[in-house]
Amino acid sequence: MGAGKTAFGAFPDRDLRSLAVEAGEKCLHNAHVVPSQIESFYLGNFAGPAFVGQNHLAPYVSTALGILGVPATRIEAACASGGSAFFHAWLEVAAGIYDLVMVVGVEKMTSQPTPRVSEILAEAGDCAGEMRAGSTFASLFAMIARRHMHDFGTKREHLAAVAVKNHANAALNPEAHMRKAITLEQALKGKPIADPLTLYDCSLVSDGAAAVILAPLERAAEFTDKPVRILGVAQASDYLALDQKADITTFPAVRRAGEQACQMAGVTAREIQFAELHDCFTIAEIIAMEDLGFVPRGCGGPYVFEGHTALTGERPINTSGGLKAKGHPVGATGVAQICDLVLQIRGEAGERQIPRHSLGLAENLGGSGATCVVSILGAA
Amino acid sequence: MGAGKTAFGAFPDRDLRSLAVEAGEKCLHNAHVVPSQIESFYLGNFAGPAFVGQNHLAPYVSTALGILGVPATRIEAACASGGSAFFHAWLEVAAGIYDLVMVVGVEKMTSQPTPRVSEILAEAGDCAGEMRAGSTFASLFAMIARRHMHDFGTKREHLAAVAVKNHANAALNPEAHMRKAITLEQALKGKPIADPLTLYDCSLVSDGAAAVILAPLERAAEFTDKPVRILGVAQASDYLALDQKADITTFPAVRRAGEQACQMAGVTAREIQFAELHDCFTIAEIIAMEDLGFVPRGCGGPYVFEGHTALTGERPINTSGGLKAKGHPVGATGVAQICDLVLQIRGEAGERQIPRHSLGLAENLGGSGATCVVSILGAA
Repeated sequence: MGAGKTAFGAFPDRDLRSLAVEAGEKCLHNAHVVPSQIESFYLGNFAGPAFVGQNHLAPYVSTALGILGVPATRIEAACASGGSAFFHAWLEVAAGIYDLVMVVGVEKMTSQPTPRVSEILAEAGDCAGEMRAGSTFASLFAMIARRHMHDFGTKREHLAAVAVKNHANAALNPEAHMRKAITLEQALKGKPIADPLTLYDCSLVSDGAAAVILAPLERAAEFTDKPVRILGVAQASDYLALDQKADITTFPAVRRAGEQACQMAGVTAREIQFAELHDCFTIAEIIAMEDLGFVPRGCGGPYVFEGHTALTGERPINTSGGLKAKGHPVGATGVAQICDLVLQIRGEAGERQIPRHSLGLAENLGGSGATCVVSILGAA
Repeated sequence: MGAGKTAFGAFPDRDLRSLAVEAGEKCLHNAHVVPSQIESFYLGNFAGPAFVGQNHLAPYVSTALGILGVPATRIEAACASGGSAFFHAWLEVAAGIYDLVMVVGVEKMTSQPTPRVSEILAEAGDCAGEMRAGSTFASLFAMIARRHMHDFGTKREHLAAVAVKNHANAALNPEAHMRKAITLEQALKGKPIADPLTLYDCSLVSDGAAAVILAPLERAAEFTDKPVRILGVAQASDYLALDQKADITTFPAVRRAGEQACQMAGVTAREIQFAELHDCFTIAEIIAMEDLGFVPRGCGGPYVFEGHTALTGERPINTSGGLKAKGHPVGATGVAQICDLVLQIRGEAGERQIPRHSLGLAENLGGSGATCVVSILGAA
């Protein structure tokens, strides 16, 4: 497997395609692969047409990388677009259909003004229902957080602890959007966005791209001396609207995808050493830990607050800085999570390298839980 | 395999989801399958976010059909979105990953005013290049037609003959958008759109949905006593912009997908008995016949004009009425083509049933040739 990423950030001089091509070329170089070897191409992208006015994005990007003729397919699954593209690429390789499959995830968001960005993001929710009633994703996740507080005693300090940890990790990541450590006090005093969420509970609006190349394990030695093995991958779905869910403090799609990926990998959740979780809002990281079985339900908040998911903790979460501080170019996020697992597994994560890094998990969530992709990677 | 479609047309009272659900439910009924049996779900949709302001469309539709939990994936490949979704569903079944896979294609276009529809469609082309310079798809295909006339002596009468034939076929199709036969004179005197193309050379802006269910052949008897076999499917890609193509009178992606699908099916193009071809403009049907090898290059125009592709001809093309007259709800088109092949192969095409109907081909084109999916179906 090869991996490559752009830095994440606000890049007024870069367009969608140049970001995708940069990540793709870094990935080809990393895998020692030339474009003509790629047999199938996937593009994970959420809303290129709305953000930059270009649709039909898969061949638009693949041809710019010099990948010609082969199937080039765009997958859209809201914020899980990148993870879903990875899932489909893995299906092709695992089933023996193609050997070398490339996945690029990309989003160019910062060219639109913030209110328009919110509108575009809201299209990942139920627009005829909750969004028409005035909801945004921040207000939906605020309701989720409030309910989690009510049911389990989760505190604002617990949410803030997620932000503090992820900002600390991003400060060590040269490719992160926001390399700024913050204190618990700062996080708690952040500008209110949707009570109880402050600015520091929300992920960033970013530009960026990430890419990976998959190959059958028996051919991995042709491309790398540090192969990373895909042990399990699963995609699951659920209702878009919160009012259709029986309980908004748990996401059935995350539970299902997590269980299936663990079963495929032959591991239990407790054995996972580290993870990149979809912290679109701080509460989402807490719930993901619970839904994946890292901790019992309701125990996610204290677990973070006590430091168990820090770089030095028993199970580091979002060593990259997460969506919170590494940044969240929507379509790139799921692929970037895979790149970040690869970096750790290969021992190439620099200042944020963790000691136990042979079994990692990525969880990529779409909307308020209507799509989830969970991937488990390990040292080969 | 099961198949189901809505009528195609302008339906001001219907939203995207209700169309998709109608097609999906007809298809489930046709296949004698209940939603809980579906193991994977694909949605082919081009521009739902722009047309109706809703993204994250795969779980939005699948959950409304009662399909819960399983992977629900939206594929966007411009006008080939439906065909590409079918290709990926076929991959999963052929590789033995899942047994029962459902594909729904849908587009709701008529809620936007015509100039906005043209803008949205243009996003399937190269927006930073030819589209910014003022092109629309009509003007691009006009250039293609003009060049085909110059190189091969194709005449306006040849283009018009495509429209006359497809309108005649649609007049026999109760689900067609425009059930109106036209004369060659009418077609030639149509309102000019982009010279040499008139109104009658252009496909329709429509609302509609189509759905199919795929299963392994050895299980087909559980679901139908008229199984249809998928003999070959291939997807190919190429540059978006015409100025990047060496020759605009041929589409490399069509040739490649056609050759691969024929090779997989173990048939030659000459053996194909009938076909649904992507006649977004009349010239596209002529070039598709040439690129697929039904006729030598440059001979498509006279072949249509002489009646060989009429219902009574040696190789009927677009017995459904095609995009021209059946209608072209973009994301639905590629799936609807499959449904129309199924109808003919099963001998259920009513007044437009053709006598030789055991080996059919569907060709679904994205943009001005950047994506193509070719599928070959036969009686099992």
